[in-house]
Amino acid sequence: MPWDTGDTMLNTHKPTGLRRLLFAVAMTIPLACFAQDDLVWNPLDADNAVYLELQEGTVVIQLNPVFAPKTVLHFKQLIADQFYMGTSFYRVIDGFVAQAGDGSDIDGSEAAAPLKAEFEIDWPLKPADEEKAKDWTPMSWTPVQSSDLFAAYTGFIDGFPAARDDDKAGKVWLTHCPGTVAMARNDDPDSGATDFYIVIGQAPRYLDRNLTVFGRVVWGMDVVQRIKRGPALKNGIIEADLERTWIKQVRLASALDQAQRLDIYVADTNSPGFLQMLKDRRERSQKFFHYRPPEVLDVCQVPVPARLEKSYLPR
Amino acid sequence: MPWDTGDTMLNTHKPTGLRRLLFAVAMTIPLACFAQDDLVWNPLDADNAVYLELQEGTVVIQLNPVFAPKTVLHFKQLIADQFYMGTSFYRVIDGFVAQAGDGSDIDGSEAAAPLKAEFEIDWPLKPADEEKAKDWTPMSWTPVQSSDLFAAYTGFIDGFPAARDDDKAGKVWLTHCPGTVAMARNDDPDSGATDFYIVIGQAPRYLDRNLTVFGRVVWGMDVVQRIKRGPALKNGIIEADLERTWIKQVRLASALDQAQRLDIYVADTNSPGFLQMLKDRRERSQKFFHYRPPEVLDVCQVPVPARLEKSYLPR
Repeated sequence: MPWDTGDTMLNTHKPTGLRRLLFAVAMTIPLACFAQDDLVWNPLDADNAVYLELQEGTVVIQLNPVFAPKTVLHFKQLIADQFYMGTSFYRVIDGFVAQAGDGSDIDGSEAAAPLKAEFEIDWPLKPADEEKAKDWTPMSWTPVQSSDLFAAYTGFIDGFPAARDDDKAGKVWLTHCPGTVAMARNDDPDSGATDFYIVIGQAPRYLDRNLTVFGRVVWGMDVVQRIKRGPALKNGIIEADLERTWIKQVRLASALDQAQRLDIYVADTNSPGFLQMLKDRRERSQKFFHYRPPEVLDVCQVPVPARLEKSYLPR
Repeated sequence: MPWDTGDTMLNTHKPTGLRRLLFAVAMTIPLACFAQDDLVWNPLDADNAVYLELQEGTVVIQLNPVFAPKTVLHFKQLIADQFYMGTSFYRVIDGFVAQAGDGSDIDGSEAAAPLKAEFEIDWPLKPADEEKAKDWTPMSWTPVQSSDLFAAYTGFIDGFPAARDDDKAGKVWLTHCPGTVAMARNDDPDSGATDFYIVIGQAPRYLDRNLTVFGRVVWGMDVVQRIKRGPALKNGIIEADLERTWIKQVRLASALDQAQRLDIYVADTNSPGFLQMLKDRRERSQKFFHYRPPEVLDVCQVPVPARLEKSYLPR
């Protein structure tokens, strides 16, 4: 059976019909039931939304200035300096990370100045002092799992997967999940500079509290997954320039005209619809489940729904 | 700065040099240290290796006839019948699964006959009867984690990630990890027929013991990750034929001439090198680790190394 033309391709086996599609949907393992109506959708803050443009398409990263204020400022400065334009993903290991932003030949420049680690923060407790308490805003926490394999507690903080070592105080940090964006570094915790990575595989949670997570991909993970891989047994390093995926541009949404932006909305992880989705995913009460799975949730396996209202950019 | 030609691309920012590459490697978060020398490498059994050929490249799937004997036979028959040739990945959700093999318009044919579920097996205990004990071979078990979030025990069985509810007897099953290949079904546990899926994101372990896992991708996960996605909010269904990734061919390695095969070796998960790798990944004693992570392992986050000795097929 030939496989030459689009026309042949569409007719080799069998036609697409409505009946076929309906059957196919029935043959489908369940992803999630969630009451979409109860979801609150938040637009992205244009001052903390980054457009990473690759040959393969546009990736949108939401920055997190609460957990990594200095790193976010530094990253924005690098973007403003057009530092990443024309750099590449030079280390890409399938199932692990895609790493870009090599700054090795600009040591001495401001960009290469090492960054202080921002691995975790103290849970922000209400100050005892009444004056100070006035400026205090509580941190939101949508609990997902206690006694998670890697942490005492996991949950969401305004859309970001996170973990804690105490549910009242203690430390809190952003977790390494698929789509997590963090700064690479040397052995010195304070050695991050320009190299960053995106997690593209099963959550490497052992990196939590060891690297500065400063953002997450909210749109275009399919584009990220098309980044060219290096050889896993050679630490993912891609030596030949032509075999790498190159960065065309990195821009902050607020630096673009409204008409150039993607109109993306992300589900509010504090909203009733999201809480219901968590409950449904934990209970799995659909009759599909012949064996009822344990009532646990992996914080990295809970999708935070996102939607694109309008697209002005070509994808 | 223009981004028009390959030549421009390579010169926009800075040249590639050895020094740059060395620095880049140093800036690198650690994947794994393993004593590659102590790894035993096994060739794939040609009777249980499947070549799934997509426009994007070749994917190699290792079948598991121990856990899913009937499903494997059925799948091989479908391959021999060229059933999958010219079918498509019609339901693809980034971070979840890529599903293909719709058989809705061939109901009544042998291929569409529903398959008995093969969700789990009894741990094979040595028979008390001496005669029967002669034919018995113990099952290998490389322990990874006890008190895993989703199961009492996780480990590897001859290269496949697996879980158990008892470390002496009980049930044992193959887990849903990135690269896991399983049969889709309806609500009826015995309704699988031709539709299969490949896990492409964070392990959906809640599907364990609910679907028949019958293989895993051992080569070409980067190709799988290039499969075109559908809209997550529409259950990943891709309605337009031209927006789907189509299957050119599916063939069993043993049906190919030696010269057409990929010479792939997979690390033996019973070998000393692999045990050492598990230990290293659990302990994380490198000085990179400022914060020492908990000594736990996610069975789906342990890569089983594979290597390609020779390639005769274009990739």
